[in-house]
Amino acid sequence: MTLFDPGPGDAPGRESGAPEPAVRLRLELAYDGAGFRAFAAQAGQHTVAGVLAEALSTVVRHPVEITCAGRTDAGVHALGQVVHVDVRAAVDPARLLKSVNAMLAPAVVVRRADPAPPGFDARRSALARHYRYLVLQADTADPLLGSQAWLVRHSLDIRAMAAGADALVGEHDFRAFCRRPQGTSASEALVRLVLDARWSEQRPAPDGLASHERLLRFDVSGRSFCHQMVRSMVGTLVDVGRGRRRASDVVAMLRSGDRSHAVTVAPPHGLCLVGVDYDGSPPLR
Amino acid sequence: MTLFDPGPGDAPGRESGAPEPAVRLRLELAYDGAGFRAFAAQAGQHTVAGVLAEALSTVVRHPVEITCAGRTDAGVHALGQVVHVDVRAAVDPARLLKSVNAMLAPAVVVRRADPAPPGFDARRSALARHYRYLVLQADTADPLLGSQAWLVRHSLDIRAMAAGADALVGEHDFRAFCRRPQGTSASEALVRLVLDARWSEQRPAPDGLASHERLLRFDVSGRSFCHQMVRSMVGTLVDVGRGRRRASDVVAMLRSGDRSHAVTVAPPHGLCLVGVDYDGSPPLR
Repeated sequence: MTLFDPGPGDAPGRESGAPEPAVRLRLELAYDGAGFRAFAAQAGQHTVAGVLAEALSTVVRHPVEITCAGRTDAGVHALGQVVHVDVRAAVDPARLLKSVNAMLAPAVVVRRADPAPPGFDARRSALARHYRYLVLQADTADPLLGSQAWLVRHSLDIRAMAAGADALVGEHDFRAFCRRPQGTSASEALVRLVLDARWSEQRPAPDGLASHERLLRFDVSGRSFCHQMVRSMVGTLVDVGRGRRRASDVVAMLRSGDRSHAVTVAPPHGLCLVGVDYDGSPPLR
Repeated sequence: MTLFDPGPGDAPGRESGAPEPAVRLRLELAYDGAGFRAFAAQAGQHTVAGVLAEALSTVVRHPVEITCAGRTDAGVHALGQVVHVDVRAAVDPARLLKSVNAMLAPAVVVRRADPAPPGFDARRSALARHYRYLVLQADTADPLLGSQAWLVRHSLDIRAMAAGADALVGEHDFRAFCRRPQGTSASEALVRLVLDARWSEQRPAPDGLASHERLLRFDVSGRSFCHQMVRSMVGTLVDVGRGRRRASDVVAMLRSGDRSHAVTVAPPHGLCLVGVDYDGSPPLR
């Protein structure tokens, strides 16, 4: 079964002993980030890409390299992370999914495995990334939400937070909201396009929550994000909700283009990469 | 600070050396049941009541006994379990809550601690118990729901399940749906009053779920439940949803009053005790 058709011009000779053509697979992953050092493989560290690469290479019997749509930090979860991986021989994606899941459960689950369309690159072909962040406004933690929501013990003004979120939408220099990549200067712009950013109150309220307790959800979509950008947005907006900043400060921070405002970075465990958009077109640059 | 007023007739002399009057506290608990052997304290076992009693006795400096509204099985969660505990001296419930939570986090959280009203008994005063059960209809697990939903890899007919649930409402002999308590005969009735039983589809669907995936929720309320009653209901109704039984079989099972129908018991991790109702009146019998 050939899953990836390299096209007539590229068809290699399949003589015995000649290397088989690479087959690119597109995988969709969900994971509980709590136990992982990060997404990206690092020698000697327990990472999502590390355990996935190990399981895949056991099945296909050669080392593989994982390319993902969004490199999530330690503790960050995913419901719809997308990766691609090149394997040397044709494999049945359904069988691969089953074998790999048997090795990875329960913290990591491959939800889909398909042959990738021609030219597909999990990172470069992505048109948009969607993240959510959960904030539990309560006096005490909820053990069933504990590793997936940031517990904030202050009353939050969701209207002010929504106004602050509105200011983030559009193309801006997000220097003030990003951890600067190594080897770049502080004056360098970090321009990103935010497509949507909104707060909502999860209704009905989770069972058992007392009436003053609320589960708030922040949904943000963008073409791409720089490091700690979503968590810095959430930290800043929660400061707005607590009354420690005004919604208009968000605009000032975007204009100032530096982190001298001492941005609050929300903890990683409230964050989840919920999905990545692609289309059938060649990867954007 | 006296939290429990024993009434003028019962007021003991508070001479030095005389035992202090008992103060009854009402605690509301949430817990992730995954790591526990069960709720009820058992020597040498890691149980919810065991760790709670240990934490409370450390704070109040004497052994305590926990009485709960619903003895949940191993793996079953709670968002609104209620217990009472008698302590020998007046304590500040807010301080107790804080100290105990510092010892129990993150698997167990005391959400409220209050002086109990006169005559209050967490088990006997309860007017109704509310449970929920989550079923994830999907091909693959969801790591963020993993320990809180039963993964069912079959398409489920929610209308048929709802019809079966309707048949459970009311006062019935639930022998066919209960694990018989030791020392009782198979002919003995296990009559229980079910106040409400309904299925709903959680909307919006959790992020990242493919379109054929659904999160179904069963809510059931009753005066009280016998052992494994909710899980047997859910197992039977999921069999109905899969087409392995008809909704009318539920009525036949209630009428037959035995377990020769080989009832399917749903796994414990989908179940959660969401709350217990009380009022200010003396305990019902």
